[in-house]
Amino acid sequence: MTKTQITLVQIDNYGPWTTTPEPRREVDLQTLQSRLYADVSQLVGNREGYAFFGRFDNMVTVTNGLGRSAHELIQESIANRYPVTASMSVAVGPTPVEALGTASDRLQDAGSAQDSDRRRILRGETLAEADRSTEDIQIAHFDVDDATGKYTDQLNEFDTFIRIEQGYAELMRYMRRAHDSLAFFVGGDNVITVCSDVDEAGYDDAVDHVEDAVGVELRVGVGRARTAQGAGMDAKHALEECRENGSDVELAW
Amino acid sequence: MTKTQITLVQIDNYGPWTTTPEPRREVDLQTLQSRLYADVSQLVGNREGYAFFGRFDNMVTVTNGLGRSAHELIQESIANRYPVTASMSVAVGPTPVEALGTASDRLQDAGSAQDSDRRRILRGETLAEADRSTEDIQIAHFDVDDATGKYTDQLNEFDTFIRIEQGYAELMRYMRRAHDSLAFFVGGDNVITVCSDVDEAGYDDAVDHVEDAVGVELRVGVGRARTAQGAGMDAKHALEECRENGSDVELAW
Amino acid sequence: MTKTQITLVQIDNYGPWTTTPEPRREVDLQTLQSRLYADVSQLVGNREGYAFFGRFDNMVTVTNGLGRSAHELIQESIANRYPVTASMSVAVGPTPVEALGTASDRLQDAGSAQDSDRRRILRGETLAEADRSTEDIQIAHFDVDDATGKYTDQLNEFDTFIRIEQGYAELMRYMRRAHDSLAFFVGGDNVITVCSDVDEAGYDDAVDHVEDAVGVELRVGVGRARTAQGAGMDAKHALEECRENGSDVELAW
Amino acid sequence: MTKTQITLVQIDNYGPWTTTPEPRREVDLQTLQSRLYADVSQLVGNREGYAFFGRFDNMVTVTNGLGRSAHELIQESIANRYPVTASMSVAVGPTPVEALGTASDRLQDAGSAQDSDRRRILRGETLAEADRSTEDIQIAHFDVDDATGKYTDQLNEFDTFIRIEQGYAELMRYMRRAHDSLAFFVGGDNVITVCSDVDEAGYDDAVDHVEDAVGVELRVGVGRARTAQGAGMDAKHALEECRENGSDVELAW
Repeated sequence: MTKTQITLVQIDNYGPWTTTPEPRREVDLQTLQSRLYADVSQLVGNREGYAFFGRFDNMVTVTNGLGRSAHELIQESIANRYPVTASMSVAVGPTPVEALGTASDRLQDAGSAQDSDRRRILRGETLAEADRSTEDIQIAHFDVDDATGKYTDQLNEFDTFIRIEQGYAELMRYMRRAHDSLAFFVGGDNVITVCSDVDEAGYDDAVDHVEDAVGVELRVGVGRARTAQGAGMDAKHALEECRENGSDVELAW
Repeated sequence: MTKTQITLVQIDNYGPWTTTPEPRREVDLQTLQSRLYADVSQLVGNREGYAFFGRFDNMVTVTNGLGRSAHELIQESIANRYPVTASMSVAVGPTPVEALGTASDRLQDAGSAQDSDRRRILRGETLAEADRSTEDIQIAHFDVDDATGKYTDQLNEFDTFIRIEQGYAELMRYMRRAHDSLAFFVGGDNVITVCSDVDEAGYDDAVDHVEDAVGVELRVGVGRARTAQGAGMDAKHALEECRENGSDVELAW
Repeated sequence: MTKTQITLVQIDNYGPWTTTPEPRREVDLQTLQSRLYADVSQLVGNREGYAFFGRFDNMVTVTNGLGRSAHELIQESIANRYPVTASMSVAVGPTPVEALGTASDRLQDAGSAQDSDRRRILRGETLAEADRSTEDIQIAHFDVDDATGKYTDQLNEFDTFIRIEQGYAELMRYMRRAHDSLAFFVGGDNVITVCSDVDEAGYDDAVDHVEDAVGVELRVGVGRARTAQGAGMDAKHALEECRENGSDVELAW
Repeated sequence: MTKTQITLVQIDNYGPWTTTPEPRREVDLQTLQSRLYADVSQLVGNREGYAFFGRFDNMVTVTNGLGRSAHELIQESIANRYPVTASMSVAVGPTPVEALGTASDRLQDAGSAQDSDRRRILRGETLAEADRSTEDIQIAHFDVDDATGKYTDQLNEFDTFIRIEQGYAELMRYMRRAHDSLAFFVGGDNVITVCSDVDEAGYDDAVDHVEDAVGVELRVGVGRARTAQGAGMDAKHALEECRENGSDVELAW
């Protein structure tokens, strides 16, 4: 049974900040958002977690292994180095969607994302060591079968991008609806999904669904471990096996 | 008439690099991709251009104002500071999609994205000063009407994210098909589109289409200038007017 | 008794890399060096350590609290994101200079800094938990009394810089010779020193020596703890007391 | 005759910011300072200038080629992305020291470095295109003869560092006093000096002086051009010739 600890990281009052006193240069906002995400990725990754950029002002991280003080350190590091602060809300759930739902509720209870008085909230509970196991996290790493040959080396880049986006949009809704799982596009033709207890048949169905719905052919490697880093690396290796075997689904266990 | 100069920036041989000799830690790949994009944003933005992360290994930039030596400098700067190199292909077109199409073709002619011998290509032509005008670039900045109130402060963050993604996926296909324009999600609830000569009615239709198709209510501010930075900043200000006036579409000229 | 764990971080084959095939743009080398250092600072600091830029291609870090796997992670993270790799050599000593000496020897035994075959060395032993105590690290934080009033707001910036440098050069030699301690300029008018068991009289003498030798008036706050972060923060607070009390030396314990 | 345009970049109110409301984590301050410097290096370097970290809260940049709007863009970019702002003061002088002196005076006239009301000053005049020539900037790139063989591969790293620092401290005072020139340590065993019209005999004397005074053997390559980048790259190539010829001084013209 999965037991996912999700931390929602939300930049405080970001919308207003980007337009006060005047709208800020877009290239600077992009640089700020990307570098803040890169730092969160390193801070969380330093302790075996995973971070997804999502909407950039709202980032979703998998933080099994990070306790309260690790969260405080991340929050303080951001506040010391950026012109904005971030609020963090942690929750544990039997499915990733449930954990993120609880984390979202907790943060919303503390105040609006655009409430100028709501700063640096840190709420929630983290998993106790005694409650952790090697089956807590399931990560599925999807990519598009031969994206380079079919798309990147053939089409106008935007048409390649549209196909990848359509495939992602379809997969994200399906995994959320059918499996309470969170799928994130991570660049190239890759989507990493934080899953509940999905079995091989479940992944076969997901791949079939996306191919039927939008014509994009996916394959997937899946890993399971105590931490996101552990599960994610196993998933990457399983995906390599898909490449070698020509299979659509490979589970690392 | 718009005259958009698009430069496609593609990381050389990235797919193989991420898995050779073994798959690399995801948090490090995310950090690398995000910081490379942030640097491209600054390098292009330093000369009034705009950069969109797209798929991260393929970035689309609007480079009216950057000549060949500016492109060489960007390419050299990346090669000096990253473990990967980038190829760049520039083209000018009467519509953004056409410019990106030509740029994509040129790059594909030089070799595959995963051809280990294809490194640091720089191809294409840049706009001559004499051919530039204040109507070359049209930028439309869309956001979701009251995203914070309707979504961010109400829903599970992933459900907010799904809605924003669905809105974006619909808008990106519509703007490409109906107007040969390139739409990019840039964080939060914002989509910036590099447009051809779209008029007010065209934007009204786009907003209506997205609302009818997926139920997401957009509004948009549009700017027109010699550079992406100029057009983009006018678009931001026009979007502020939408907020103040309660209108769906505002053109800066 | 102090027990300092020092890790020397040396970029492999850097000299040749900066000039092969041609000398590289200085601004890019500066950007690379500074950002690599910033990342090492975060990676080490994430686990309560301290990092000093030193010569940039050779960085000195205080790593009490980091075991072998933490060192491997730092090394891997650098290799995944930079065009260079780093070798790391760890040693523990009753004085900082001794620890750094042992670490330097170990690295030199493995090969030259400019040996193109020597890459990603990781050697040495780290402190076992059972051997750690709250007196392991002593950090002294020096600054110049009223640097802003006497120098920054009065002189040509280079003359201010010369005075700070002379003060630093004198202090670094004195602390190394008299106390086997390592002093590092960290910006502004601040020097942070990793010390052996120096007492209050010892610091009084150091301050007097620098004033007599080069006419620069220092004051210092000193902290002692299990980690560099702990000792360093106590030292900062003690330095604040110097400001408030008008004293030259304040010990946090 | 040299004609150096120097811009002094000073972080506003930095001392107080680092200790308010409490002293901030040193590793975060180091990360902030280093990354801010890296960004300034790229922003200035993008237009053929050079940037030196100096004291980090006070950076010295050579900005021949950057006009007022380029300075405003750099200042705005920093303000949009960092928790601090920077003031900039530009001046042109027949020697680098004179230019920096005028720039320092101008900034001091505007207010103290620790005046909380003094923010984002931008003062001074930039070189008009018509007044520029290929002899405006002279850059000398010094390094230590066989630093790796004599020091890095032999000594305790701190003793290597002390020798490099002593050599630098001696050179910086000599070049300032004898030639109104500004010398900056840039990592490894390298010192880059922004010079006035120094001839070959002048460089021979500087090298002899440092060897006599502190026993450190330097060699130097010198370049002259319209921009810092141009002069600096010529200096690097000239230094390569020192290596090949076994000479102490090589001029690129």
